[in-house]
Amino acid sequence: MNSIKMFLLKPEYYDNYENIKVRGWVSANRGNKKMRFLMVNDGSTVANLQVVFKGENFDYELLDQVNLGAAVEIIGTLKATPEAKQPIELLATEFKLSKNTNDFPIQNQEIALETLREMPHVRHRTNFLKCVMLIRSTLAQEIHRFFMTREFYYMSSPIITSNDGEGAGETFNVDDDSKEPFFGKGNRATLGVTGQLHAESYAIGMKKVYTFAPTFRAENSNTKKHAAEFWMVEPEVAFYDLKDDIKLADDMLKVVIRNTIAKHPFEFDYLVKNIDENLLARLNKFLESDLKVIEYRKAIEELAKVKDRFENQDIKFGLDLATEHERYISEVLFDGPVAVINFPKDFKAFYMKQNDDNETVAAFDLLVPGIGELIGGSQREENYDKLLKRINELNIDAESLEWYLNLRNFGDSGSAGFGLGFERLVMYVTGADNIRDVIPYPRTSGNIRM
Amino acid sequence: MNSIKMFLLKPEYYDNYENIKVRGWVSANRGNKKMRFLMVNDGSTVANLQVVFKGENFDYELLDQVNLGAAVEIIGTLKATPEAKQPIELLATEFKLSKNTNDFPIQNQEIALETLREMPHVRHRTNFLKCVMLIRSTLAQEIHRFFMTREFYYMSSPIITSNDGEGAGETFNVDDDSKEPFFGKGNRATLGVTGQLHAESYAIGMKKVYTFAPTFRAENSNTKKHAAEFWMVEPEVAFYDLKDDIKLADDMLKVVIRNTIAKHPFEFDYLVKNIDENLLARLNKFLESDLKVIEYRKAIEELAKVKDRFENQDIKFGLDLATEHERYISEVLFDGPVAVINFPKDFKAFYMKQNDDNETVAAFDLLVPGIGELIGGSQREENYDKLLKRINELNIDAESLEWYLNLRNFGDSGSAGFGLGFERLVMYVTGADNIRDVIPYPRTSGNIRM
Repeated sequence: MNSIKMFLLKPEYYDNYENIKVRGWVSANRGNKKMRFLMVNDGSTVANLQVVFKGENFDYELLDQVNLGAAVEIIGTLKATPEAKQPIELLATEFKLSKNTNDFPIQNQEIALETLREMPHVRHRTNFLKCVMLIRSTLAQEIHRFFMTREFYYMSSPIITSNDGEGAGETFNVDDDSKEPFFGKGNRATLGVTGQLHAESYAIGMKKVYTFAPTFRAENSNTKKHAAEFWMVEPEVAFYDLKDDIKLADDMLKVVIRNTIAKHPFEFDYLVKNIDENLLARLNKFLESDLKVIEYRKAIEELAKVKDRFENQDIKFGLDLATEHERYISEVLFDGPVAVINFPKDFKAFYMKQNDDNETVAAFDLLVPGIGELIGGSQREENYDKLLKRINELNIDAESLEWYLNLRNFGDSGSAGFGLGFERLVMYVTGADNIRDVIPYPRTSGNIRM
Repeated sequence: MNSIKMFLLKPEYYDNYENIKVRGWVSANRGNKKMRFLMVNDGSTVANLQVVFKGENFDYELLDQVNLGAAVEIIGTLKATPEAKQPIELLATEFKLSKNTNDFPIQNQEIALETLREMPHVRHRTNFLKCVMLIRSTLAQEIHRFFMTREFYYMSSPIITSNDGEGAGETFNVDDDSKEPFFGKGNRATLGVTGQLHAESYAIGMKKVYTFAPTFRAENSNTKKHAAEFWMVEPEVAFYDLKDDIKLADDMLKVVIRNTIAKHPFEFDYLVKNIDENLLARLNKFLESDLKVIEYRKAIEELAKVKDRFENQDIKFGLDLATEHERYISEVLFDGPVAVINFPKDFKAFYMKQNDDNETVAAFDLLVPGIGELIGGSQREENYDKLLKRINELNIDAESLEWYLNLRNFGDSGSAGFGLGFERLVMYVTGADNIRDVIPYPRTSGNIRM
């Protein structure tokens, strides 16, 4: 269970450990016929372990032929090297070339991200992608741990569904090769755009639930922020109101980001030095500050004062905030994350709780600097008549939502929840600016590589 | 953060706690005009908390009208009741009817499972389904925790893919409503039947990886064990051989099942009393015993000795074991879980490592009593030429697998992994005998309810 990460984190502790076996891949190879240095990476961290070969024991001809990317197995003694660039190194006693490489495409770290996107099966073996992907995994695991610790029920909402959730966005159809519809005549089958409606049904009875699953949009847009397949985290809690919901979102982000930073010193070190020098400062500032809250109406007033800054200058109640407005609010107005609350009902989903003003709904968008909207959530309308009226106003097919409407008759105390686009979180935490670089095999319009 | 589960687990500890707020749903209501008893469930466990109303403070007319399933909020004082059936009860001081029910379909626990399948949005509010679903969630969370503790990388293999993985099983097609193919001309897009091939690419570089995601099969079969949409756990580890792989599977099952049992005393108590009295004994026996291993050839010899027991009596090398054979091996021959290893290559997937005998592959099936195959895994063929030859022998399109083949040139030391059908695990651990009852919204041929 030893990993290079552990050795590098505690060099004094592992000093003089003998018979350590390291298995990994070569990221540098230099030396001569009497001495050889291999940098080895084992996937536990972006950092490498230097392995030193000297003495009579080794075939230096073979060692010279070890290519970048080769799989190797080395046994040796760990030596702390407090004066050196690497805090610890491995003095090899045995060497095995498990598998050499042949035309390995990663020969340096200068390959453009666009080029790397053509080879999603190997790009995680570059430093930047390795950092991003390691952090992605930890963020996901910490999200599960956060909810597990708080006794949330992990809900598997269906992926293939006959509901299209928000009534927004384009959906993918699902069918098989037979003539008869697989799921029965007249049943349209699509890939879910959200697990929320089904999660709501489980919140009534399980109280605190969350989903964490892939969702799908057949949007033909080609932006840095949109993918056809992405993962969503959607908690839903019975008896919660908007305030509870915002607090949950804030707590989740802070706990998950704090734990992730603590687990990835080498990765954040790499990202700060090579990608974005302000990354850690920005994240730490978020961790240390209380989340601000602003009413949508108030935000509109503030935006109107500086409308000349924006492309869309028609700033009044009813405006669906664009990224430029969102970024102004979080970056300039608050210089940090902020929750905008109580949006006009006209551009929000049918299921959101209607406020007493008859114009707004109890929704929030959590905006962060550099990204814009990271999380969107709301309290749900628990009143059967109000919900039905809204469904009809919006010309949504009430029949297919009958089961969902009926939950209001079955002890629905009113729940609240939110959706976190998981890839947006990975972008926020790593500084990556394209969604294609934060998911292993991105699927976008025109692209289904491998 | 208090839950009814905590109160019931530690009644002495919570004795005389005042101002406890409980929010949940009513599962029984009895009493008269001077005293009222509500059984309340808050989703933390299948067990209920008895809430006692007495004295002048309450509107007994209102309390009398509280229906089953109603959402309620109660403040009161906890009292340990060591002599009573319930170890603790709540003496109410305040009561709020958050939302009553109207025609709530769960009026008793006698509803047939078939009937409950018609109402997946409320069936988790019956005792059996609540037990199953709570255990499902914990199993999933414990699987993440197991891999997290061992520093595995959590891999998001793509769901929409142009590879059909095993070349087995029917796949679902994915398309949108436009005339142009969304993912580009000539690109077939299907729902993944496995995340393994993509996970293998990440095992080279990340070393220890796992997926945990929905997978899909358009199989038109209508059995108790098959669904069109189900979740798979697929670890993949570089440098592992078959023996390491089997040990990982055994460790994972034991850690996950042990932790799950520890977290669900009330649920297992319910299941043992109402569903399967041998459930816990069977699981504990598994936890206490070493996993047995038998060569496929040897298993065939043993089956041939008792061939009269089986429907398929043509028992010789080359037989693809049916459930009846698998169950004999685990239930009669070993009376416990067993890994059958080194299967004939002819009915196993192309990517499995070919053994030196030229007839078998380094694969294993982990069989458990009552279920048959729970896990299937293998070491992967890391030799480029052998793998290509096998792909051609099987008439699989080598071009679409070029990227996968090429991994063998990129430092592939040989990896091993396995697939666990998550719903099968839930069935094994809960005693549920139909896959439709272990996933919230089951999708099967002809059924896409809600």
